Amino acid sequence: MDKDIPVISLQRLPVYLNYLKALPDDRQYISSGNIAEALGMGEVLVRKDLAYTAAVGRPRVGYLVKELISALEEFLCCNGSRKAVLVGAGALGRAVLSYGGFKNYGIEIVAAFDSDEKKIGDLVADKPVYDIAQAESEVKKLGAELAVICVPAQYAQEVADRLISCGIKAILNFAPVLIRTGNGVVVRNIDVAANLAVLSSMI
Amino acid sequence: MDKDIPVISLQRLPVYLNYLKALPDDRQYISSGNIAEALGMGEVLVRKDLAYTAAVGRPRVGYLVKELISALEEFLCCNGSRKAVLVGAGALGRAVLSYGGFKNYGIEIVAAFDSDEKKIGDLVADKPVYDIAQAESEVKKLGAELAVICVPAQYAQEVADRLISCGIKAILNFAPVLIRTGNGVVVRNIDVAANLAVLSSMI
Repeated sequence: MDKDIPVISLQRLPVYLNYLKALPDDRQYISSGNIAEALGMGEVLVRKDLAYTAAVGRPRVGYLVKELISALEEFLCCNGSRKAVLVGAGALGRAVLSYGGFKNYGIEIVAAFDSDEKKIGDLVADKPVYDIAQAESEVKKLGAELAVICVPAQYAQEVADRLISCGIKAILNFAPVLIRTGNGVVVRNIDVAANLAVLSSMI
Repeated sequence: MDKDIPVISLQRLPVYLNYLKALPDDRQYISSGNIAEALGMGEVLVRKDLAYTAAVGRPRVGYLVKELISALEEFLCCNGSRKAVLVGAGALGRAVLSYGGFKNYGIEIVAAFDSDEKKIGDLVADKPVYDIAQAESEVKKLGAELAVICVPAQYAQEVADRLISCGIKAILNFAPVLIRTGNGVVVRNIDVAANLAVLSSMI
């Protein structure tokens, strides 16, 4: 992808993609103005964001919906096949393993890891739960580059360090603690309670 | 709270709070520089963010850790008791209901709603699952102001509209679709797959 795109723009691309995919099948063209209005955003912002993709708008009619979807999917690597592993097969981990939405972005969660003997050997949504002690060999064997962390806060950094030593390049972290990485490994933190707290502070 | 704080700053407050709470008990003082270094952020940014709270730093030593924690908790309404309901008691909904982290922010999820007869009447983590048809009366009776939406994308807007008509003021939405609201109702969207896709695009 174009590494020069700001993360803030990159984050909006799935929003456009979801919106476009929800349009009626017979909708042929859409302008950046249409998208901006529907999503309550500024038109210039939408046009700038879409300019990072390979989509080309036509004067007066805008973008061909199908072309724009393809361009966004290509940009977001939706047509690739990236493999992910998940650590922590508790309630949240199991929910994420069961979630079908990753395949829309060309991502497949192929296995989970846990340290709890009761969970090791389970199948969750057809995905095996391995012993975290086997992470070093299994992650490489599986060819995974992405990881989702769903362990309690106190284990998150240790798990992240371990995953990075296994070759993981990007981590989505649900533990309510900020994970530090280096060497170009990227992290996004989703703290569910903090998100609700921020909302609570706004009302 | 101070309504003038930018959302971007507000979002960082739980990060500072989590960091401060994880410090050793005998740590008495901390400076904005210490925090900035530990979290990989700019010192000026940290100082500006903390200035929205009631905490007052002392020259040379910085903030009293306990005072800063209290100031952040007060700002984030952690000492209040806001009630939340959840709609969609599937795998993700059940995980969120079972998650204990909300109480750190003074938030309690008091009940769930679903339309599936098999789920209605259940108890999940001691919280009752009610029929969504009863939302109008139950939400008011429970005194809930916050809501978490964990339903499939196609039902999310309808559920949001219903919750808003019940008096809900803030919504955390896990459905992979942008929810539109009006009348000062605030929404945060957490699209799990999109977050992983954004990471995937960055590596």
